[in-house]
Amino acid sequence: MNYYQELNISTDKFFSVHDVTEKIGAVVRESGVLEGMVSITSMHTTCALSINENEKRLFEDIRNFFLTIAPPEGPYKHNDLHLRENIPPDEPENAHSHLIAMMLGNSEILAVHCGALVLGHYQSILLLEMDGPRKRTLAVQVLGDK
Amino acid sequence: MNYYQELNISTDKFFSVHDVTEKIGAVVRESGVLEGMVSITSMHTTCALSINENEKRLFEDIRNFFLTIAPPEGPYKHNDLHLRENIPPDEPENAHSHLIAMMLGNSEILAVHCGALVLGHYQSILLLEMDGPRKRTLAVQVLGDK
Amino acid sequence: MNYYQELNISTDKFFSVHDVTEKIGAVVRESGVLEGMVSITSMHTTCALSINENEKRLFEDIRNFFLTIAPPEGPYKHNDLHLRENIPPDEPENAHSHLIAMMLGNSEILAVHCGALVLGHYQSILLLEMDGPRKRTLAVQVLGDK
Repeated sequence: MNYYQELNISTDKFFSVHDVTEKIGAVVRESGVLEGMVSITSMHTTCALSINENEKRLFEDIRNFFLTIAPPEGPYKHNDLHLRENIPPDEPENAHSHLIAMMLGNSEILAVHCGALVLGHYQSILLLEMDGPRKRTLAVQVLGDK
Repeated sequence: MNYYQELNISTDKFFSVHDVTEKIGAVVRESGVLEGMVSITSMHTTCALSINENEKRLFEDIRNFFLTIAPPEGPYKHNDLHLRENIPPDEPENAHSHLIAMMLGNSEILAVHCGALVLGHYQSILLLEMDGPRKRTLAVQVLGDK
Repeated sequence: MNYYQELNISTDKFFSVHDVTEKIGAVVRESGVLEGMVSITSMHTTCALSINENEKRLFEDIRNFFLTIAPPEGPYKHNDLHLRENIPPDEPENAHSHLIAMMLGNSEILAVHCGALVLGHYQSILLLEMDGPRKRTLAVQVLGDK
């Protein structure tokens, strides 16, 4: 059996981390799947998913670390908007957001066991916004058996 | 139901990015699965998969960024070929390719909904070659219901 | 059909790489699934999973590379233990381990075809310990058809 749902999340800052564990857990419960897997995908190219600890000082480290590795003001060709074709009028200069999103990854797969998400004690499912604030969508598909 | 297929892709440069979205979409259609998931895996250790935007200037940024973080000429122990055992005569010095592949990841999971891949407007499935040109193989498995 | 199992792995160093391919292959065989997928998840926030080559000199490069990018002694807010609430008495200063784990990722999805894991010739499933030695748990879920 399968169950598909899209979740909408509004982000409020340029770079922010949002814990979506409870929302994903609710989709798994609604699915009725007891044993299987859940896939979660960010439907965006500047917004990633990661599983790690929900600790607000760590969220600041994440921001500082990735913006240091891939600084927004770097000499990126993707940011030469005048040299690109067919771009919308509000196209942002966000090459660094694409690069960070690629390092973090934009999909996660988790086991579903006994009707619940399998997560360790300190694990949360985190949506990482790198080009906000925006409205973001996650695609969630649950597959398995009753 | 399930459907398994291997896709062959020839890469043409040392470091290059290839959009494989249409090929994966074709496998999903051939599978007949309407609701489920598709897993895509690079069967190589110096060739990664990522989901991001197909924009040719961004592809140059990806190349520049990752080759700066993990430069080919770094002092890598894996590149001391004379200190390794059982290596083929054409073994390349490619430690940096392994490290970049690990950062990018070599598998992706996507939802299949209404018989189609679930991807956002700007998302493409990208194969990233870091040690080309080579012939590469992707393993694609579709699992779900009609 | 589905089959769920948790695997326990003891790590022996601060930063180490462990090949778990055989253990995962055994779970797939025990599952009886012939065509499907296997998801593998690290249930920890400072211990990652990656698929790459089992080559001991490369393991040293992995350690050196990631500890250079995210050095343990960096000025991380997560390591200011006196400013955090509800922390256990043995809480380590491990912000860098979280950041490296996020770059590497903590889950993998692999195809199962003809009753076996689909892996390329040089691919192994690697558990990467970044805050050991510890006892670690992997959640493995196999889903598919006979």
